[in-house]
Amino acid sequence: MTLAGTDATQDGGEGARTLTAAAVAKAVSGRLIGDPESVVRAIAPLDRAGPDDLSFLASARYSTLLATSRAGVVLVAPDLAESAGEGVKSRVVVEKPHDALLALIPKLYRAPAREPGIHPTARIGRGVALGETVTVGAYAVIEDGASVGDGSWIESHVVVGTGVVVGRECRLHPGVALYPGARLGDRVQVHSGARIGSDGFGYVFRQGAHQKIPHVGRAIVENDVEIGANTTIDRGSIDDTVIGAGTKIDNLVHIGHNVRIGKLCLVMAQVGVAGSAHIEDGVILAGQAGLGGHIHIGKGARVAAQAGVFGDVPAGESWSGYPARPHRESLRSYAALFKLAGMIRGLEKLLARSDA
Amino acid sequence: MTLAGTDATQDGGEGARTLTAAAVAKAVSGRLIGDPESVVRAIAPLDRAGPDDLSFLASARYSTLLATSRAGVVLVAPDLAESAGEGVKSRVVVEKPHDALLALIPKLYRAPAREPGIHPTARIGRGVALGETVTVGAYAVIEDGASVGDGSWIESHVVVGTGVVVGRECRLHPGVALYPGARLGDRVQVHSGARIGSDGFGYVFRQGAHQKIPHVGRAIVENDVEIGANTTIDRGSIDDTVIGAGTKIDNLVHIGHNVRIGKLCLVMAQVGVAGSAHIEDGVILAGQAGLGGHIHIGKGARVAAQAGVFGDVPAGESWSGYPARPHRESLRSYAALFKLAGMIRGLEKLLARSDA
Amino acid sequence: MTLAGTDATQDGGEGARTLTAAAVAKAVSGRLIGDPESVVRAIAPLDRAGPDDLSFLASARYSTLLATSRAGVVLVAPDLAESAGEGVKSRVVVEKPHDALLALIPKLYRAPAREPGIHPTARIGRGVALGETVTVGAYAVIEDGASVGDGSWIESHVVVGTGVVVGRECRLHPGVALYPGARLGDRVQVHSGARIGSDGFGYVFRQGAHQKIPHVGRAIVENDVEIGANTTIDRGSIDDTVIGAGTKIDNLVHIGHNVRIGKLCLVMAQVGVAGSAHIEDGVILAGQAGLGGHIHIGKGARVAAQAGVFGDVPAGESWSGYPARPHRESLRSYAALFKLAGMIRGLEKLLARSDA
Repeated sequence: MTLAGTDATQDGGEGARTLTAAAVAKAVSGRLIGDPESVVRAIAPLDRAGPDDLSFLASARYSTLLATSRAGVVLVAPDLAESAGEGVKSRVVVEKPHDALLALIPKLYRAPAREPGIHPTARIGRGVALGETVTVGAYAVIEDGASVGDGSWIESHVVVGTGVVVGRECRLHPGVALYPGARLGDRVQVHSGARIGSDGFGYVFRQGAHQKIPHVGRAIVENDVEIGANTTIDRGSIDDTVIGAGTKIDNLVHIGHNVRIGKLCLVMAQVGVAGSAHIEDGVILAGQAGLGGHIHIGKGARVAAQAGVFGDVPAGESWSGYPARPHRESLRSYAALFKLAGMIRGLEKLLARSDA
Repeated sequence: MTLAGTDATQDGGEGARTLTAAAVAKAVSGRLIGDPESVVRAIAPLDRAGPDDLSFLASARYSTLLATSRAGVVLVAPDLAESAGEGVKSRVVVEKPHDALLALIPKLYRAPAREPGIHPTARIGRGVALGETVTVGAYAVIEDGASVGDGSWIESHVVVGTGVVVGRECRLHPGVALYPGARLGDRVQVHSGARIGSDGFGYVFRQGAHQKIPHVGRAIVENDVEIGANTTIDRGSIDDTVIGAGTKIDNLVHIGHNVRIGKLCLVMAQVGVAGSAHIEDGVILAGQAGLGGHIHIGKGARVAAQAGVFGDVPAGESWSGYPARPHRESLRSYAALFKLAGMIRGLEKLLARSDA
Repeated sequence: MTLAGTDATQDGGEGARTLTAAAVAKAVSGRLIGDPESVVRAIAPLDRAGPDDLSFLASARYSTLLATSRAGVVLVAPDLAESAGEGVKSRVVVEKPHDALLALIPKLYRAPAREPGIHPTARIGRGVALGETVTVGAYAVIEDGASVGDGSWIESHVVVGTGVVVGRECRLHPGVALYPGARLGDRVQVHSGARIGSDGFGYVFRQGAHQKIPHVGRAIVENDVEIGANTTIDRGSIDDTVIGAGTKIDNLVHIGHNVRIGKLCLVMAQVGVAGSAHIEDGVILAGQAGLGGHIHIGKGARVAAQAGVFGDVPAGESWSGYPARPHRESLRSYAALFKLAGMIRGLEKLLARSDA
């Protein structure tokens, strides 16, 4: 089965568009081989594609799939153009099939449909400022003094806290909660269940109890940031928590209070960043990495999956392991570790002898 | 205090049922010692059980608790049958007390009560297909073109996205969100706050920005799957994300786009699986394990807690550690590592001497 | 820009209060240097503070910021009192500037405002007991037989399950879900998206399927506990899950079924605790640490970030690493590991020679 039918829009609704092989070739400035009239309605991987589907072959690793594929049209790299079988009606030869495919998705799949307007069940507080052509979904709650910019889409069950600012053309998916102190720029996407501006984890131990430090800082999310499902970003204690413009954050990530993340960073799933860490522009944090409090990650640095970072990482470097070290050092250390198992007895004997 | 009273149903409501010791023995085909007429209303651990409670002793480790227990009826293994004290009115001797207990829970605790019907506050979109005896709770939102199979239970504040398919006898706990592209089979249980079908983490860097790859694949959850609280499962980009029949997923797990998980797998809390990983049937992933993208985990393999898996794991093998290796290798390596600390100085001297 | 204006309350609303430098000095019993009449309305870090802001300098590391700061009033430690520049109107010298600051926050920021009453859109089930001056927000759902103590605040979209007990002066932030079996004490704070009392991850493999173990235990949260955003706490299977009084839990933490956590513990973000682990009073679990099932953590023990704990930890000890060991052992082992990389070739030669 393919992505056609009820998947024919990104939003899962009906309404497939169609493209001819010729139109595909033209759109990606590729070279057409085969029937220019064959029509595609959807995109599918080679093994599941049918005569109505567009597919692609980017790597020789999958060329066997192309030989048996029944796809109507296949985007293929020049060196692999000849590996197609009988089943494929038309091929379009392009340098980068996958990139070309991205250009075609909007031509075959409608973007999610949005109807401007406030759903009758939405609760809008006192002094709320709503921009033009805003959409507010069922059971959304916008508390007193909040503002939402032009063209933003607040989906069902979203809670926008007191005094929160949401910019233009933002999209908050169902069940997002923005605490007071949250400030979103323009074109920010927040996925379902994300919490922005929650109190940081700060206590002072006094009179036999952990006494809560009131949090009065903000959680500032700059333009063009995307935040994944069920991710949590705490507000600052006195200073602010800041997510820089164009940074993308995956699911189930934790960002502690007063953390500053620069522009155009990539933060992958389940990463945890402890309070007051400072991450410069263009940093990549891979899945499940953990960063200690108050550390500094230099511009363009990369932190590998599951790394445990307890000190500063210089700009441009790649670090990995626990405790995190420059990636090459870590690789050598872990390689040595796995050799050590077979050597340890012999080494013990050597030491015993040398002591004697 | 015991589980009786307001805990007398799984759903926390009133309405204890009762069993006599004789009925317990009959139900588990066990041998009764003591008063056949003693009545139990609930189940409690040995140390908290009272005369109205059923309890159990599976391991000699806890036999001292049995000596002082006041439980009305105790399920006990043959070799431990004699360790009960005065306080216990009746014992029922069975081979596997814990398994026997599971058979008795439904006899003492009512399953959660469900009243079929659509709550007046639920919002049902255009072209939604609801099966027979479906329950839709308060403030649930079912978007256009979605379908829900016979006997399914959509609890309060659940959001079922446009065109989503939910099978028969499913249960979606409060606050679940299903994005467009989600497809649930039959008897699927999804716990509170889980997000299924969220966009995957996919961008291409162009013109100085991370440009979002539109996701048009599906998130397919097959029959008899259970998904834990606040877990996130991304939809596929072009291919699908698939969770195989009978697989159980714990809380706070992340499943990336295009991941394929086989049948009857167990995925424990906080596991993260990166995009396009392929996991065969019967695999066990222990808590906080992380799997890299595009890797393959063979049938019946086991990945230990916190393991960092960056390559393929062959069928049937157990791997652990960082980077993950066959479990025995890892154990030997870590054992050697902890010995090394005490040897390193001596080894340095040996090397110095040998260089001289 | 500063925290003044729309951030002038913890809740993000309007209504700044003001303090003179003299009043500040009096409140913290500090020594005033400079203009006693200078007025502050908000608190900001040194680099962002303006003439209307109170700021502080706790560490010499930031004394250069003080030289150029334009803060109206600065709390400063005795040894740093002289490092202020022209821009600062008044200084207040105190031993612990940060602690002093905490005492001043309530004087400048209003606590979040709460209006007692049940929102007309809230759904209250049969036999629900609500205490005095309770607040229930928009679209909250309180199921049959639940009870909420005096002065508690149930925010919008919260779901309180059948028979659940919530104590006095609790605050449940938007979108919290309490499953049946949850029991909250007094002054418990639960942050947005947390799930308490979800079914534990328990199955028995029978007739070719993972069969679910019905969970009938409770999730007991004692007085003065705070629970972070999107954290999940499972109910017990037959025994209970218990979080001890005064314990604080951060975001995205997983607590498995039957886990017992003592009083006054600190559990940091993304920690995972497997079923039936027993954690004594005053334990600190740092971020992303993982604890195996059925293990015991002694009173006052500390577990370092990302540690993988598979055995018992004695009272008062600090453990770290994978597999976790006493912290000093781990440090020595990892230090040796990083030396080993440079030695491994030489050691291999030594062994070869000695074999010869």
